[in-house]
Amino acid sequence: MAAAIGRKRWAIPDGYIPATSATDDPDMKSHETVSMLNTGDRDANVEITIYFTDRDPAGPYKVVLPARRTRHVRLDKLDDPEPIPVATEYAILIESDVPIVVQHSRLDSRQAENALFTTIAFSE
Amino acid sequence: MAAAIGRKRWAIPDGYIPATSATDDPDMKSHETVSMLNTGDRDANVEITIYFTDRDPAGPYKVVLPARRTRHVRLDKLDDPEPIPVATEYAILIESDVPIVVQHSRLDSRQAENALFTTIAFSE
Amino acid sequence: MAAAIGRKRWAIPDGYIPATSATDDPDMKSHETVSMLNTGDRDANVEITIYFTDRDPAGPYKVVLPARRTRHVRLDKLDDPEPIPVATEYAILIESDVPIVVQHSRLDSRQAENALFTTIAFSE
Amino acid sequence: MAAAIGRKRWAIPDGYIPATSATDDPDMKSHETVSMLNTGDRDANVEITIYFTDRDPAGPYKVVLPARRTRHVRLDKLDDPEPIPVATEYAILIESDVPIVVQHSRLDSRQAENALFTTIAFSE
Repeated sequence: MAAAIGRKRWAIPDGYIPATSATDDPDMKSHETVSMLNTGDRDANVEITIYFTDRDPAGPYKVVLPARRTRHVRLDKLDDPEPIPVATEYAILIESDVPIVVQHSRLDSRQAENALFTTIAFSE
Repeated sequence: MAAAIGRKRWAIPDGYIPATSATDDPDMKSHETVSMLNTGDRDANVEITIYFTDRDPAGPYKVVLPARRTRHVRLDKLDDPEPIPVATEYAILIESDVPIVVQHSRLDSRQAENALFTTIAFSE
Repeated sequence: MAAAIGRKRWAIPDGYIPATSATDDPDMKSHETVSMLNTGDRDANVEITIYFTDRDPAGPYKVVLPARRTRHVRLDKLDDPEPIPVATEYAILIESDVPIVVQHSRLDSRQAENALFTTIAFSE
Repeated sequence: MAAAIGRKRWAIPDGYIPATSATDDPDMKSHETVSMLNTGDRDANVEITIYFTDRDPAGPYKVVLPARRTRHVRLDKLDDPEPIPVATEYAILIESDVPIVVQHSRLDSRQAENALFTTIAFSE
């Protein structure tokens, strides 16, 4: 039942963290999440690289995703080696040493009523 | 026309049931749904496993999806072997003994005006 | 440049047409759309079958998608052989005699401010 | 780490630019975006073709996506060879000479509170 499902390389072109939020509730602030699932029996060593329109990529941001666990990484909280700037178009490459599954979501609360979107990331 | 379409293993990394709702309408309460389609001529025996960030997986939750039918399973209503906690990051693995298709959706009504998202789940 | 892209069989598990709308604007009424693209040089003969939870499937609904054209089919407007009931869980199978691409979207305007979702359908 | 990920042909059936917006904020006006990521070491020469329901396709719209960069192209701003009309159903074919990844998003602000959707485009 716990055999690994997934791929080792994932891409998400539409990264964007809105600069503002209509609320102070931390859960409802504008943010993006990369949710990762590791159904296998080995911990996943994950590296996240951030691409921009007008500068070289940032990263890698290193994350450990334990065996048989999920992690939902908020991209606005990454800060090593550098924070991702808000109100800036970016894209995301995720590389793992074991198969994982990746989903990308955004909560946009620039206006009073929040909007959401999600998609399974692209893999090959 | 009714030949089976789909796969036997599906994954959804971004599971989350908001703890609150701005309405008492049961249809509009914050919830997540796993919608499944079985176009084949054999009933599907489906097992759902829930992964967490800091504990071992829960499940399997067993669902029968009859031949030539769809089922839209509300994840907030599963309770055997245990309910899925609200306001908790989780992920979903779905395994079937015949090919099915799976789509994941969330209705978030924490604020007065609801937000929706959906994606076809990942399969291989 | 215009070679055909796509597949011949597509599935969408999460079909649902909300019964109500907070507006009388026809464009903003709660509805679902199946958007189809035919980049090839031959017209596509498309058949849509609707699956339910507790009865046999309805259809086929027949649609012609001309060569090098798109059609965005509103599911609430299909009526031959029968309309799709509102407030009812259903799923969609789309079969074409030439490769096409299919995307599924919902506009939910039960509340004053509408919500949207979309996903590329599942194909194989 | 920077090896190319992606495909050379992508399709998006559900294109639609709402004609109106409840705000004058340029970022919040109703619009669609095609976000593209090129993780490889060669610039991508991208051609976008727009399909309609009742006329021949428009384009190609030519975009250069530099190596190791992302571009988020707003479809309402394309104007060579012609602008995409608002309130009109269309579909999108994207062709590149090197592998890229494509994601499609819409912000709909016809009503006071905006709605969002996204999906990874279809590729083969």
